[in-house]
Amino acid sequence: MSAAQDSGTGELITLPAEAQDQLFREARTANTFTAEPVTDAQVRAIYELVKFGPTSMNQQPLRVVLVRSQEARDKLVPLMTGRNQEKTAKAPLVAILGADLDFHDELPKLVPFMENPRAIYENPAVREESARFNTAIQIGYFILGVRAAGLAAGPMIGFDRAGVDKEFFADGRHSALCVVNIGRPGPDAWMGRLPRLAYEEVVTSV
Amino acid sequence: MSAAQDSGTGELITLPAEAQDQLFREARTANTFTAEPVTDAQVRAIYELVKFGPTSMNQQPLRVVLVRSQEARDKLVPLMTGRNQEKTAKAPLVAILGADLDFHDELPKLVPFMENPRAIYENPAVREESARFNTAIQIGYFILGVRAAGLAAGPMIGFDRAGVDKEFFADGRHSALCVVNIGRPGPDAWMGRLPRLAYEEVVTSV
Repeated sequence: MSAAQDSGTGELITLPAEAQDQLFREARTANTFTAEPVTDAQVRAIYELVKFGPTSMNQQPLRVVLVRSQEARDKLVPLMTGRNQEKTAKAPLVAILGADLDFHDELPKLVPFMENPRAIYENPAVREESARFNTAIQIGYFILGVRAAGLAAGPMIGFDRAGVDKEFFADGRHSALCVVNIGRPGPDAWMGRLPRLAYEEVVTSV
Repeated sequence: MSAAQDSGTGELITLPAEAQDQLFREARTANTFTAEPVTDAQVRAIYELVKFGPTSMNQQPLRVVLVRSQEARDKLVPLMTGRNQEKTAKAPLVAILGADLDFHDELPKLVPFMENPRAIYENPAVREESARFNTAIQIGYFILGVRAAGLAAGPMIGFDRAGVDKEFFADGRHSALCVVNIGRPGPDAWMGRLPRLAYEEVVTSV
């Protein structure tokens, strides 16, 4: 019996049960990885899939820095918090997911039917909030995209944000929101599944 | 030839091509819907799937209000901006997606292995930022969950946030981040696909 049949509600989900398992039910946040490399072609394939996820006014503020060189890894690891240091030191690929706080510069080509869309986000506070919100939504898509590629993601928010921004986004117009380890799960990659809130605790009707 | 084969990178994505299409490539933000109702059982099935998406420290701050009654709909519609009013008036189901800004009250049961996890988020500013970030990630999961149920989502951020919070989250501990219309796409449900940023514009290596 698949997990979908087990839940009693899976038949209302038309996505094939195996796909549901791969993205949600059987996928887990990985803390250890095998040594198998994650290629640029795999990252490109993930991006070419998740880029279609919707964002407000087609903003697409997510930017990704792949930490490929040993020099860059050596700069990142000490900026991670506690046990994230070891995970980040050993993962086959580490990606920094950040928000382009000046995403509005790209809007004329992203919403070509609008006249001067850039003007909507002239206010830096409004722009930054929107960049953070939509980048976070895209981080959700990205994590599922990693899983869609048959890989495991280990997203982390425990790091020195000012330090990471300074080292990896020196232009001052980006903000790192999440660091993600990516690879195939290694030995003892995760602990037991943590509890989820019940439907009734999350969803109400009025 | 499927869209996956067409892209030249789809074979690196192990999720079946049809599932990729359903969630990302062929799915679109809908602006019109048929009259077919969206049932509570469908919403429950969506939640039971997307609840497994990871959040920081298993926070799960997303809360969902289903606007079921005509009275509630009549309160919400005038709080929507411009053309969102008509879309929201006509959609079979409207859901308000909000952040529980006091999510830390639930942490003792969500991370049972930690001693006093609530204390980590005693600072209201830190807690609110984390609630907004993780709720946005969960909104990404939720939108894909709607699509996994064979339905279309129409997420909107154009609404009077203070007004929606006052009407629908009167306890003062929640913040509405997004309103989503849900149903089967109706006539002329969307315009042409808008451009996406190229891989090279989003992903860099260091």
